[in-house]
Amino acid sequence: MPSAAGRGQGKDRRPDNEEQPAADDYAKERYGVSSMIQSQEKPDRVLVRIKDLTEEKADEVVWVRGRVHTSRAKGKQCFLVLRQQQFNIQALVAVGQHASKQMVKFAANINKESIVDVEGVVRKAHQKIGGCTQQDVELHVQRIYVISLAEPRLPLQLDDAVRPEVEGEEDGRATVNQDTRLDNRVIDLRTSTSQAVFCLQSGICQLFRETLIRKGFVEIQTPKIISAASEGGANVFTVSYFKSSAYLAQSPQLYKQMCICADFEKVFCVGPVFRAEDSNTHRHLTEFVGLDIEMAFNYHYHEVVDEIADTLVQIFKGLQERFQTEIQTVNKQFPCEPFKFLEPTLRLEYREAVAMLREAGVEMGDEEDLSTPNEKLLGRLVKEKYDTDFYILDKYPLAVRPFYTMPDPVNPKNSNSYDMFMRGEEILSGAQRIHDPQLLTERAKHHGIDLEKIKAYIDSFRFGAPPHAGGGIGLERVTMLYLGLHNVRQTSMFPRDPKRLTP
Amino acid sequence: MPSAAGRGQGKDRRPDNEEQPAADDYAKERYGVSSMIQSQEKPDRVLVRIKDLTEEKADEVVWVRGRVHTSRAKGKQCFLVLRQQQFNIQALVAVGQHASKQMVKFAANINKESIVDVEGVVRKAHQKIGGCTQQDVELHVQRIYVISLAEPRLPLQLDDAVRPEVEGEEDGRATVNQDTRLDNRVIDLRTSTSQAVFCLQSGICQLFRETLIRKGFVEIQTPKIISAASEGGANVFTVSYFKSSAYLAQSPQLYKQMCICADFEKVFCVGPVFRAEDSNTHRHLTEFVGLDIEMAFNYHYHEVVDEIADTLVQIFKGLQERFQTEIQTVNKQFPCEPFKFLEPTLRLEYREAVAMLREAGVEMGDEEDLSTPNEKLLGRLVKEKYDTDFYILDKYPLAVRPFYTMPDPVNPKNSNSYDMFMRGEEILSGAQRIHDPQLLTERAKHHGIDLEKIKAYIDSFRFGAPPHAGGGIGLERVTMLYLGLHNVRQTSMFPRDPKRLTP
Repeated sequence: MPSAAGRGQGKDRRPDNEEQPAADDYAKERYGVSSMIQSQEKPDRVLVRIKDLTEEKADEVVWVRGRVHTSRAKGKQCFLVLRQQQFNIQALVAVGQHASKQMVKFAANINKESIVDVEGVVRKAHQKIGGCTQQDVELHVQRIYVISLAEPRLPLQLDDAVRPEVEGEEDGRATVNQDTRLDNRVIDLRTSTSQAVFCLQSGICQLFRETLIRKGFVEIQTPKIISAASEGGANVFTVSYFKSSAYLAQSPQLYKQMCICADFEKVFCVGPVFRAEDSNTHRHLTEFVGLDIEMAFNYHYHEVVDEIADTLVQIFKGLQERFQTEIQTVNKQFPCEPFKFLEPTLRLEYREAVAMLREAGVEMGDEEDLSTPNEKLLGRLVKEKYDTDFYILDKYPLAVRPFYTMPDPVNPKNSNSYDMFMRGEEILSGAQRIHDPQLLTERAKHHGIDLEKIKAYIDSFRFGAPPHAGGGIGLERVTMLYLGLHNVRQTSMFPRDPKRLTP
Repeated sequence: MPSAAGRGQGKDRRPDNEEQPAADDYAKERYGVSSMIQSQEKPDRVLVRIKDLTEEKADEVVWVRGRVHTSRAKGKQCFLVLRQQQFNIQALVAVGQHASKQMVKFAANINKESIVDVEGVVRKAHQKIGGCTQQDVELHVQRIYVISLAEPRLPLQLDDAVRPEVEGEEDGRATVNQDTRLDNRVIDLRTSTSQAVFCLQSGICQLFRETLIRKGFVEIQTPKIISAASEGGANVFTVSYFKSSAYLAQSPQLYKQMCICADFEKVFCVGPVFRAEDSNTHRHLTEFVGLDIEMAFNYHYHEVVDEIADTLVQIFKGLQERFQTEIQTVNKQFPCEPFKFLEPTLRLEYREAVAMLREAGVEMGDEEDLSTPNEKLLGRLVKEKYDTDFYILDKYPLAVRPFYTMPDPVNPKNSNSYDMFMRGEEILSGAQRIHDPQLLTERAKHHGIDLEKIKAYIDSFRFGAPPHAGGGIGLERVTMLYLGLHNVRQTSMFPRDPKRLTP
């Protein structure tokens, strides 16, 4: 059992300004800095979770491990807030039977963010404790040991990091800018907001896979180091590969399609996608996580569109059901309307979208791609008209899609391709792919692509290929837009962009 | 509805050697090459799965889409084997009311691996049909249309590709060598063995995550492009990153540990891991899939070891329960003993392993690492003594582990580190990590590591870090060893090694 002030590993490991406990300190065994946990022993002490400290535990003696979120000395008392992930509780160290004045001073001087083991009695609070998640109880501390000591100066304050920007602007209170956050990500990720964002993101991945496995999909693993840049070589990172060189995959598409040609029928994969684009926007990363789907269909690519849309709907519903606490936590700092969607998902044709935009005063051609502002505007128009934050735009002009996109059978200027949008921003791009090597060759030629470079791709379809379609979803964008956040760096733990490679 | 010989897209799309149907062909609407499926229509035709064609469906008329696995003409009849993933059925086209002699000839001439839509009556077979999974029924074909035509010469024959090596050796029958397989992976992945291997691999990932999420872990996404090679720079791939350069992550370890320091407590990730090692062995890849775990513990790293071992046990059990068909399919080509494991998992200390090896005649020092042959031998000794194919080796000598490994608190020559083995091969390496920046600095100096290069790593622990441990599992190795296969390239869909970057 870690114990006794005397067991610390020397003065340099003690909190600042602490005096040696006086010889007459009757509590001297009850606090101190524990020696580093090196798996010396296996005590049978139970550590209770802070979120489980409720009125039902009143008057029980419990051990808790938490971080010192704040501490405030007040005469013969010290109030600590102990934090564990998104939960926190008030702890009181007061001079009395268990605590000496030296112990109160020790507690008051523990650096914020240090990890402590505390033994205390759970007491009902006389009135609701405002700043804590555990509002009905507090902990009356009987022993306190520092398990891991934080350095005294934090690069950012957690309370500043969760403050809504509007409060910062109106009241002049401190908030934390994005680069400071990202430079000190280990601290920034400790905030209730960050904890909630990334727990919810974990949930998105889980719901994505759960749904697809239920639908009979198989998870595949596709290589990230590839020998040829499949879409012509733009925006691709080069890797030195022994005495030669290679590329980082811009998408798993070729490999997903090979799996379809290899009879896996319905596949998905979750993995990093690399884009060497020098785009410094709120929604571009050079490395992001792709949630990718590819599926053989019987007669019509809408069979696939329906499966993808339903998968997203299952994700939205699952988040509502399982992550309500996290959504509310994020909303406190970043207020936003709840995410709305329809069942079945609204599907508009591109020409309808163009008509809606024109009616709103936008001038654009039939075969022109959507600009980012027009995407956003369209999102607002769709929301007004259909009351949904999620919809599918189908039948894009062939001219704005990649060479492997299947042309529309009726109108050769259109294609069997689609994007999906959340709150007016694209989160998925997909299409029926050409599965016929002859047509694929023609289309590649039309696009001026060097056939030699895509020979392996075209050859994949020479030994019988089922009609198929698919798409790729950007995980960070889905997280951002579901939660109504404004920058994809908020939903990437360690974002990569042209200017950031660390931490 | 695709129909009629006349709807083919011209002669070049027809199977070889086919004559134009005679004008007097009474079945001419009942066969042919369909036009490419371009999502022209949404027919309400139901395609039945081959695996669902059983005696219960006898005398029903069904539509099936499958590949022509084999075809054999015999007088006025043609026997086809139609395949769908791991399942296949015999189909008979016979001159009669529905089929003309031209139609039988057409069917007989369809290139193997072409995809066809077939309408037929399910008939009980007079005797078990040996070569097919559906042994009790056959399909009497009434219509047959080619959906996607394969080229006539296949680079490898599927029957050769599933032949057990011993048959090839004994009877001189053809088998397919590994490079031919990998060069033509789209075909090789269609075999029943490959289908089973990769469905089971998908199951491993699913069971890994299912188990950890049940245990309260959070899934994280870690960057693969990193600014500094964390373990000193050996065996790392370099990436050109805009005007600068970067590296591919050799493991997600630093990021997993940062998440622990950021209070996520229990995290896992599944993703590619890159090793620029010029090792051409049966078990090394330059890119593989890591199943990674990191977890804060209370007092002893065995809390983590137990969780990891239990996770693997849950995977083994889940595979037994859910993937029995796949295991049996693989066993047909690669016979092997069922995988054995104990509950709880056997945990031996390194010194015990050294003693067992010495008793078996091996000469080795106390602080010497295990060679590959000794690992294998130890696996056999452990199997003999304890009857398990899975065990943990604990307390490795400190000298053979990385600088961030926590030393043993009692014997400073040992460490709080462990490997896990399946059938005598390492599948996981892990340890308690040093969470104290001061000790970490000392150990890095001892290893002669440039402190400047690992500053960010050490700084992660300066603001309070809980004791933690973790490990990384190689997905391809787990798949290989569970199934008793002999080369990790059999369990990587698109393997990467120093000599292979394609497909």
